[in-house]
Amino acid sequence: MKTGTKKPTAFRRSPCPIAGTLDLVGDKWSLLVVRDLLHGKSTYGELLGSPEGIPTNILADRLRRLEEAGIIVSSVYQDHPVRYAYGLSEKGKDLGNVLIALVRWGKTHIPGTQTLKESATSSRRTGTTRRTSRTRGS
Amino acid sequence: MKTGTKKPTAFRRSPCPIAGTLDLVGDKWSLLVVRDLLHGKSTYGELLGSPEGIPTNILADRLRRLEEAGIIVSSVYQDHPVRYAYGLSEKGKDLGNVLIALVRWGKTHIPGTQTLKESATSSRRTGTTRRTSRTRGS
Repeated sequence: MKTGTKKPTAFRRSPCPIAGTLDLVGDKWSLLVVRDLLHGKSTYGELLGSPEGIPTNILADRLRRLEEAGIIVSSVYQDHPVRYAYGLSEKGKDLGNVLIALVRWGKTHIPGTQTLKESATSSRRTGTTRRTSRTRGS
Repeated sequence: MKTGTKKPTAFRRSPCPIAGTLDLVGDKWSLLVVRDLLHGKSTYGELLGSPEGIPTNILADRLRRLEEAGIIVSSVYQDHPVRYAYGLSEKGKDLGNVLIALVRWGKTHIPGTQTLKESATSSRRTGTTRRTSRTRGS
């Protein structure tokens, strides 16, 4: 939704929409957090538990930045101690199309890659399990 | 092109194709270099001259990494001193779909963004010019 009176963003590097998007999510971790939230994860512990093993300080930093950028929203789900649940805004959900493009490129050009869904299916088939959560921070 | 005998990549973080792609181009600069090469730039100097002002050491590093990943190819176009021209491999050109997704998201969610093509058109219309090259390293 655009407002006619809203001032354009002060561009960090250039008015190019690719540069602007990379200013927000151009790193190794942000889009993996978005991926996990799209797949229904919502707590800090669930996000920490992903197979890439995101360091806890990087996760905290990315959640803060993504929330500042309006890509994710947080809400308190527990008071003592305070715990937050994270979800995607509409703006964040729209990054799904970027993720689809990354999946397609990866599956075409990086031999052996499997989406999380495919990994889960093949684990079920072979009876193996994968680490899916950590207790710390959950 | 896939070969049946090729060993799957040893994954840096996980078999997820998003993670694998971000291992190669998940930073603020790599996809801007790919954008510029798709737009026909080919020399170090032309790439340095883009409006985002990529630092020369980062450009050198990204060109090396992208070439190691098979995304770009270089060829000598001048002998004394040696100068290289850079271009995209088929694998690199395929990243065009990722760029399209980033452009769409940026244009929808970052007010005021303009593609390089649109910027050039509006510059021509208003008679303004934009810095498009630097002499250093060209």
